[in-house]
Amino acid sequence: MTRIRTSVVRQNLLQLPSALNSQESAITAPTNPDVRQADEERDDRRRFHPKWHVLAALLLSGLAAPAFASGLVDDVNGIALDDKGKLLSFNGLVISDDGKVEKLLQPKDKRPERPTFRLDGKGRTLIPGMIDGHGHVMGLGLALLTLDLSDTRSLAEAQAKIRAYASENAGRKWIIGTGWNQELWGLGRFPTAAELDAAVADIPVWLERVDGHAGWANSAAMQAAGITAATKAPPGGRIESAGGKPSGVFVDAAKALIERVVPPPAPKDRDLAFAKAQDKLLSLGITAIADMGTTMDDWQTFRRSGDRGVLRVRIMAYAAGIDQMVAIAGPEPTPWLYDDRLRLTGVKLYLDGALGSRGAWLKADYSDAPGQRGLPLTGSTQLRNQMSRAAMDNFQVAIHAIGDQANAEVLDAIEELSGTYRGDRRWRIEHAQIVDPVDLPRFATHGTIASMQPVHEASDWRMALARMGEARLQGAYAWRTMLDNKVPLAFGSDVPVESANPFPGLAVAMTREDAKGEPFGGWMPQQRIRLEEALAAFTRGAAYAGFAEQRFGALAPGQQADFLLIDRDITLARPTEIRETQVLETWVGGQRAYVRR
Amino acid sequence: MTRIRTSVVRQNLLQLPSALNSQESAITAPTNPDVRQADEERDDRRRFHPKWHVLAALLLSGLAAPAFASGLVDDVNGIALDDKGKLLSFNGLVISDDGKVEKLLQPKDKRPERPTFRLDGKGRTLIPGMIDGHGHVMGLGLALLTLDLSDTRSLAEAQAKIRAYASENAGRKWIIGTGWNQELWGLGRFPTAAELDAAVADIPVWLERVDGHAGWANSAAMQAAGITAATKAPPGGRIESAGGKPSGVFVDAAKALIERVVPPPAPKDRDLAFAKAQDKLLSLGITAIADMGTTMDDWQTFRRSGDRGVLRVRIMAYAAGIDQMVAIAGPEPTPWLYDDRLRLTGVKLYLDGALGSRGAWLKADYSDAPGQRGLPLTGSTQLRNQMSRAAMDNFQVAIHAIGDQANAEVLDAIEELSGTYRGDRRWRIEHAQIVDPVDLPRFATHGTIASMQPVHEASDWRMALARMGEARLQGAYAWRTMLDNKVPLAFGSDVPVESANPFPGLAVAMTREDAKGEPFGGWMPQQRIRLEEALAAFTRGAAYAGFAEQRFGALAPGQQADFLLIDRDITLARPTEIRETQVLETWVGGQRAYVRR
Repeated sequence: MTRIRTSVVRQNLLQLPSALNSQESAITAPTNPDVRQADEERDDRRRFHPKWHVLAALLLSGLAAPAFASGLVDDVNGIALDDKGKLLSFNGLVISDDGKVEKLLQPKDKRPERPTFRLDGKGRTLIPGMIDGHGHVMGLGLALLTLDLSDTRSLAEAQAKIRAYASENAGRKWIIGTGWNQELWGLGRFPTAAELDAAVADIPVWLERVDGHAGWANSAAMQAAGITAATKAPPGGRIESAGGKPSGVFVDAAKALIERVVPPPAPKDRDLAFAKAQDKLLSLGITAIADMGTTMDDWQTFRRSGDRGVLRVRIMAYAAGIDQMVAIAGPEPTPWLYDDRLRLTGVKLYLDGALGSRGAWLKADYSDAPGQRGLPLTGSTQLRNQMSRAAMDNFQVAIHAIGDQANAEVLDAIEELSGTYRGDRRWRIEHAQIVDPVDLPRFATHGTIASMQPVHEASDWRMALARMGEARLQGAYAWRTMLDNKVPLAFGSDVPVESANPFPGLAVAMTREDAKGEPFGGWMPQQRIRLEEALAAFTRGAAYAGFAEQRFGALAPGQQADFLLIDRDITLARPTEIRETQVLETWVGGQRAYVRR
Repeated sequence: MTRIRTSVVRQNLLQLPSALNSQESAITAPTNPDVRQADEERDDRRRFHPKWHVLAALLLSGLAAPAFASGLVDDVNGIALDDKGKLLSFNGLVISDDGKVEKLLQPKDKRPERPTFRLDGKGRTLIPGMIDGHGHVMGLGLALLTLDLSDTRSLAEAQAKIRAYASENAGRKWIIGTGWNQELWGLGRFPTAAELDAAVADIPVWLERVDGHAGWANSAAMQAAGITAATKAPPGGRIESAGGKPSGVFVDAAKALIERVVPPPAPKDRDLAFAKAQDKLLSLGITAIADMGTTMDDWQTFRRSGDRGVLRVRIMAYAAGIDQMVAIAGPEPTPWLYDDRLRLTGVKLYLDGALGSRGAWLKADYSDAPGQRGLPLTGSTQLRNQMSRAAMDNFQVAIHAIGDQANAEVLDAIEELSGTYRGDRRWRIEHAQIVDPVDLPRFATHGTIASMQPVHEASDWRMALARMGEARLQGAYAWRTMLDNKVPLAFGSDVPVESANPFPGLAVAMTREDAKGEPFGGWMPQQRIRLEEALAAFTRGAAYAGFAEQRFGALAPGQQADFLLIDRDITLARPTEIRETQVLETWVGGQRAYVRR
C-alpha cells in the first residue's frame, strides 16, 4: 500500500531523464578564469566563507555583479519534502555562494545566467542529506580503528578474528574491540574469559558488546584491573560469574572496573578516528548527526577539526552528563559554530540499560528471567535534579529510556518539570523502545520528542519477544502511533550499535521486516509508516529534534544545501531496493564532501 | 641621555598639529547610506569578517569597486618601530577592510579617495598596541571580581577592608581575595589566621598573596579543609606554623590543601571575569597578551568569548602544564583562531617559586635565611621529560625561573634538549630575574627568550637586596646585558601580580627607578635601556616570543591594525611623564575596542 501511494505521488517524475552514464557528476565552470578560480576555492573544504572569494573574484575581474552569484545543480530527479511532509519534485537547485539553497527549479523555470558552477546531475536522483538523530560519532570512529566483531557468527569465528587481529597489530599494549553479540553466535550465554584467553592470552583484551552495555575481558585484562573473586560490582553494574569467580563479562556500570585501566586513545588517534567516522557517515549519505554522549575529549576533537577546516558532517552534540555539559559549554548551549557544523545543544542522560543485557527497566519481570526487572541507572530524585540543572540554563535534555518503566518514569519527570521549565524545551526520549500503551499518548502532552532507531526493531524483535512476550509489546517501536499522536519523531541509527546507513532504516520503517524479509509482512505491521514519513523523521524530524530546523534538514530556500545524489529513485523502489540504495555523492553546505569511486 | 636621543629622532614631528579638543576622535563615514551601514557593522565587535559586509554593500549599492575598500586614520602623531627597532614617524594609517595595516602615510602621501571610514586623529599620538608578554588573564579577571587587598598599607587597613567586603557580599559561601603583601604592611612576618578571624570568623576566608605563591586562611577555611597540627605540607610546599600549629599561611604547593575545598567559580563567573579582564587590558592599551598557565576552564572561557564574537584582546595561551596542554590542544598547537585572537601556543612549566616567599631556587643560601636555598618545584629529570613531551609535538616551552640556580638549570636543560629538538623552538625563560653573570651569555646560545617584567625590578629591588645582597645581584633584571647579548627580549607585567599598565613598565625600563623615583638615578643603572628598546620588548619582542610576529606587534603593512591613541608623545616625555600616560582609544584589528570616557 505504501508503495502504491508514493509512486502515484511521483508519477510526474517518470518523464525525467535518468541517464546514469558516469558515477560522478560533472561540474562545469564558466570560462572567466577568475570565477573559475573562485569556484575551485569553493571546493576546498577548508574554506567556510566562500562568499568572500566569489565576491572578490567578481570585483577583481570587473564583472557587473548580478546581486549574489549562485551555483546551479541541474537535470536531477529531485525529491524533497514540503513543510507539511508531502513529497515534492524538482529538477534543478540554485545554491547561493554561502552554500544555502536559493531555489528549487521546475523544468520550466529559468536557470541563473552565470552560475559560479554548474553540476550536471544527468537525471540522477537527488534527495536531502540524511540526518542521524542518535549516534555516537567517536564510538564509530574508534570502532573503525579497532577490532570489529560485528560480522562474526560464532564464538569460534570471533576467536579466529581476534587471533588474527592480534598478530596483525603486534606491539599494541592492549587489544580493544567491539561488536560481539552472543545472540548472533547462538551461544545462549555470555562468552568467558577462558574462551578469550584461548585466542589471546599474553596481552589484555577488552571487547565491548555490540550495544555497549557489556564488555568481555580476558584474564590478562582482569589481572591488569585487579579483578578477583572478591571484587564487587558497583551500583548499576553486574559482574558475571561462574563457580564463584568473575567469568569475564562485565555489565553496565561494572564495565568501568576494566575501563579504568584501558589506556585512553591519544589525541592523534582521536583525530584519525574522527576523520574515519566522517568519511563513513558521508559515504552513507549522513550530512548531520546528533552525537549522544559527547565527552570533553570528543568535543575537543570536533573543535580541532572545525578549527582546521576539516569538519564536514554537522554535529548536534549532547554532552555525556551534566559535568561534561558544563565543562564543554559553560553557562548555556554554545552558538552554532563553523557555519552550522557544530553545536553543544544539550545533555544526554541515562535512565536504564538495554534489553539485550536485561538492563532495560521494566514494569514487570523479564519473561525469561523471573525476578529481574532491569536497573534504573539514575535515581528518581537524581534524574529530576539533572534535568533541572540542564533545563535551568536552557540546555536540551535527551534521556535514554528503553524499558516501559523507564519511559513511564521519564514521562513522569517531564510532566513534573514542565511547570517550571516552560517554553520550547523539546525534551527527548532516546530509543523509547518499549512503551506501555497507556503511556504512549503522554509523549504528545509536552511535545516530547521520540528519538527512535528503526533498525533496532528489525534487530531486536525476536529478543524482545523472548524478554517480554507479545502481550507486553503492544507499544514497542510504535512509530505509527507516535505519528498519529502528533509526537515529533526523529530517526537515527544508534551507530556504532547498528550501521549508520539510513536506507535500511527507511526500509524497516516501511515494512518492519529485517534484511532477510522476516517476519514476512512485518512484525506488528500496524506500526509501519510511509516512505515520506520515514524520510521526514530522518531529515526534518531529526533536525527539529536538535533545534536545527531553521538551518538544515529540508531542501528549502535559506536552508543549508545538504543533499545526496543516489543510484535509484526511492519513491519508485520497493523497500528491499531502498535498503540497497547507494550514495553517489554527498554535498554539505553546497560543497561536495563525498564522491563514490 | 636617552631622552635627548629619542627627541632628536622625533624632531620632525614637532611641526604636526596637536589639538586635543575632544577625548574621542571623530569617525566620519561617506554619505552613501549602504556604505555607512557597512561601516557601522564594522564597528560591531561581533563581526570578524568585515570584508564581506563592505563588499556586499559595494555590490548592492552599485559602486564601482576600487579594488579593496580601505579605512583611513589621519592627522595623527604616529610613532612606530621599524624592523631594525628604530623609531619612525607617520601621520596617517590606511587600514584594509580585514583590519590589517595597509600603509603608513607621510604628510605628502596621497590619501585613499573613498575610505570606508575616516578617523580624524586631531594630531594626537598614535602608537602600536602594547603586548603583555607574561600575564594571567583569568587571574586578573577573577581578581577584579574578588576582594583586592593590593592597596592596603597595613594589617589593620586590610582587616577593615576584609570586614567591609564581607558585609557588602553577604550570602557568599566563601570570601576569596588577593593582593596582600606583608612587606608593604611593614609586618616583618606573615599574618595569621587569628588576625584574619578578627575580621571575619563565621565563613571561610582565603586570600592569596600578591605573587600567588602563598595564601592566607582564616580558621573557618582551615577547618573546612580539615587542616590540623598533624597536616603535612606536600612536596614543594610549606605550612607556616606557630606554636606547633598551622599559623594560617600556606606557601606554594601547600596552597592546594586549602584550594581543593574552595568552590570553583561557575562558568558565568568566569565569563564575567574575562569580560572585566578584557575591559581592563584594553583600557591600559594592551591589545595582546601571553596568558601564562591557561587551564581548560580558562581556555573554554576564551573560546566562549570567541564563539560569541566578544573576544577583543589577542591571547597567546601557554597551558598550565602538560596535561592541560594535551587536553586543550591535542596533538599540536592550535591554529590561530578568531582572526588571530587566540592560539594555544605552548606550555608553561614551573621550576621554582618567588623571591618574596623565598621559593626562588638559589645557588647559595638566602642572605636573610641561612640554610634555605628555595625549592625546585620540578625535579631535573621531570623538567626535561616535560620539556621533551611538549617539544616533540612542537609546543613552545615557557619555564618559570626566578632564582639563579633555577635559571642555570633551565639553561642546562635547553642546552641538552636543543640537539634533539632543532629548528625554531624559541625556548622561553619566564622572569629570568636573578641570573648568575656567568649564565647571562648562555641565553643567546639557543635563541632562548628572556621574558621579563620591568616593574618587578622596581617592586622587588629592596627585597632582592635583603634576600641575596648586592654581590649576587650583578645579573639581576639584566635588560641591557640581554640586549647587548642579542637575546630576544619580551616585556610583560605578570598581571595580576603587578598592574598590567605597560607605561610604568616603559618608565622603569628606562630609569630603574620606582614610582617614587627611588633609588635616585636607578638601581644598577647600567642595566637601563632606551625607550625604543623597551617599546620593542612590549610590542615586536613580545609578539616574537609568542610566534606571532607575522601577525601583530608592528604597525607595518600586512599586520593587524592594533594601535592606541594616547594623551602624550612618549618620545618627547620624561619617564615620569611616560609613567602617567593615559590611553584615549584602543583599536584591535582595525576596530575600536576601547574609548576613554
